Amino acid sequence: MPFAEKAYKANKTVFHLNIGQPDIKSPQLAMDAVANHNLEILAYTRSEGSEPYRAKIADYHKRNHIMVEADNIIVTTGGSEALLFAMGSVADTGDEIIIPEPFYANYNGFATASGVNIVPVISKIEDNFALPPIQEFEKLITPKTKAILICNPGNPTGYLYSKEEIKILAEIVKKHDLFLIADEVYREFTYDNLKHYSILEEEGLDQNAIIIDSVSKRYSMCGARIGCIVSKNKEVMSAAMKFAQARLSPPTFAQIASEAALNTPQSYFDEVIVEYKERRDTLIEKLEEIPGVQVGHPKGAFYCIAQLPIKNSDAFAQWLLEEFDVDGETIMVAPAAGFYSSPGVGLNQIRIAYVLNKESLIKAVNILKKALEVYKD
Amino acid sequence: MPFAEKAYKANKTVFHLNIGQPDIKSPQLAMDAVANHNLEILAYTRSEGSEPYRAKIADYHKRNHIMVEADNIIVTTGGSEALLFAMGSVADTGDEIIIPEPFYANYNGFATASGVNIVPVISKIEDNFALPPIQEFEKLITPKTKAILICNPGNPTGYLYSKEEIKILAEIVKKHDLFLIADEVYREFTYDNLKHYSILEEEGLDQNAIIIDSVSKRYSMCGARIGCIVSKNKEVMSAAMKFAQARLSPPTFAQIASEAALNTPQSYFDEVIVEYKERRDTLIEKLEEIPGVQVGHPKGAFYCIAQLPIKNSDAFAQWLLEEFDVDGETIMVAPAAGFYSSPGVGLNQIRIAYVLNKESLIKAVNILKKALEVYKD
Ligand SMILES: Cc1ncc(COP(=O)(O)O)c(C=O)c1O
Ligand SMILES: Cc1ncc(COP(=O)(O)O)c(C=O)c1O
Repeated sequence: MPFAEKAYKANKTVFHLNIGQPDIKSPQLAMDAVANHNLEILAYTRSEGSEPYRAKIADYHKRNHIMVEADNIIVTTGGSEALLFAMGSVADTGDEIIIPEPFYANYNGFATASGVNIVPVISKIEDNFALPPIQEFEKLITPKTKAILICNPGNPTGYLYSKEEIKILAEIVKKHDLFLIADEVYREFTYDNLKHYSILEEEGLDQNAIIIDSVSKRYSMCGARIGCIVSKNKEVMSAAMKFAQARLSPPTFAQIASEAALNTPQSYFDEVIVEYKERRDTLIEKLEEIPGVQVGHPKGAFYCIAQLPIKNSDAFAQWLLEEFDVDGETIMVAPAAGFYSSPGVGLNQIRIAYVLNKESLIKAVNILKKALEVYKD
Repeated sequence: MPFAEKAYKANKTVFHLNIGQPDIKSPQLAMDAVANHNLEILAYTRSEGSEPYRAKIADYHKRNHIMVEADNIIVTTGGSEALLFAMGSVADTGDEIIIPEPFYANYNGFATASGVNIVPVISKIEDNFALPPIQEFEKLITPKTKAILICNPGNPTGYLYSKEEIKILAEIVKKHDLFLIADEVYREFTYDNLKHYSILEEEGLDQNAIIIDSVSKRYSMCGARIGCIVSKNKEVMSAAMKFAQARLSPPTFAQIASEAALNTPQSYFDEVIVEYKERRDTLIEKLEEIPGVQVGHPKGAFYCIAQLPIKNSDAFAQWLLEEFDVDGETIMVAPAAGFYSSPGVGLNQIRIAYVLNKESLIKAVNILKKALEVYKD
């Protein structure tokens, strides 16, 4: 974003509400495992990931009521690569994947790289981004449709799908012989005593279900670049294996860190979740105090979508950096249009990531409030 | 390769001549840099790679007479990803890339993933795999041709292109407005006092040249998963940046190792090159002692192609593992057909990687010799 440079040049302090890089410490035991490595040759691992690591990932899933074995897992270079492999494995050039929008903007990049067309189905801030009615999906299904892709909990919405919604999706994909791809990279982050329900907990969905996972957010280890694709469908896995073999192997040091991270004690997550929940509560409360602002109430992940009393959040985001400050401080937000593929939708929305401490979040929302008092589109 | 399992089950010792995983130690200073890391948060780096690392890569290139700046470099997850980004950046679905064959088999995977068609131009073992005549290329150029891709020095041939050959290629690509993509991941490994000549040393080729590079072989750090794409063509770089941004960032620990590796003293390479050269000499000498075997003489990298007095090296490779041994020892070789995309070519050839010590290589070639004495296709 070149206009951010301007803000820095003007010596402004910029609160980054726009990125998904948590400020939470990575588990010490994972960092130590790498510091204590004793490799003499930094060799390729197997293309599907190291054997012991895959076995432990299977254990992790079993602890989470997802009954998979190492064979159902391919370790990838981030959830990003898992998404790329999944799209490439279920769809050919010109095929379609239905995705509730707003959705994680990089799905577009992976779809383009795979020659796949994304068909959006709109979920609305008024409904708090709940699953659109089943008919909305069925209207969009064509002979070219290969999969429905959901993000649960959602980036950018923070929406957590209920068990009932997963069951509805399971029915649609079975009825129309589609895949259900669930990006569950934020699985651990749910609030208000709600539990995440994985598509692989759903009975009878084995042959349709593909999970995308990642250590990036779970352990605040975004720089590891480790994720995985999990599926019991052998054809999908053997197609994904071809992609995996072409790129040889996922990173070795990062697999050491990620394997160790699987021993992270529950107390780590408990603390992190308390922290995120408090941030969320503070953020939402403060946002809703601003006249004309409507907020989707996130139940998971660490994002929310806020609708602002403006016309064009792209211009607003730029103006915040270039023209505005409160005592030398300003904010950087993600215009939500990038999360919609339907043109003209979400123009007055922004995504806020609560990966800053509470104090900074309060300051940041205060800046937003003052900005909206003076801003004219 | 499932038939390898059989050999292990039969308790045979298998000499792996089939893989490109060097047995050379990684530079200690790179391994130490990771052991001494003091990261608290394993965060994403920039999508194009960390700033200091890119600056140092530019310095490395300048030391090698390649005048590039950090802006001309995008750090990738292995040379593999650099290849994927390069193909995706220069070609659209249905476009063609001309590649002298035999070529690194995974080019097929990246081409498939990018929807690109590979058009092979045959280089022959009789010519020691020299560049085919210019007319052979020109015959193949169509409106859909976007690039010529070479591997220099070559996997699987070990062929090192001369300055004159690079100049010929430069002329063709400029005349027909194509890109010249050079996979230079084996650049450091040249023998017989021959020097590698990079496409970016060639004057006037700035806008056409794209280098693929990697730390995997140079520092025996295959498990790092770090490479880069180097080009002065801004359009190519901005297209590649889109792919880079979608997958967020290359691995962080591996960038720490790779940045440190740039300080590897010349003595490390001198020793490694002496070692590979001795292995090559031993290997070629021993292979040529076997009746009916013809060998391409590699001048770089650590592979050679051997033509055997058999019909089908695929069946032979399998037979070696399943049916044959000399005192409980056998060998695993890579059938060369996988390196050709023209059907029916190279069926009696194998690729041998000299990533084993001399003693093992001598044993391995002896096994090959004994095997050929008894094998019947
Ligand atoms: C919904 C979602 N999926 C996948 C990813 C990819 O993350 P990574 O490649 O770091 O695992 C992200 C990162 O922000 C994300 O938000
Ligand atoms: C010719 C060639 N290019 C590229 C690569 C990719 O290597 P990496 O992704 O480990 O950098 C290899 C690996 O064997 C290779 O032989």
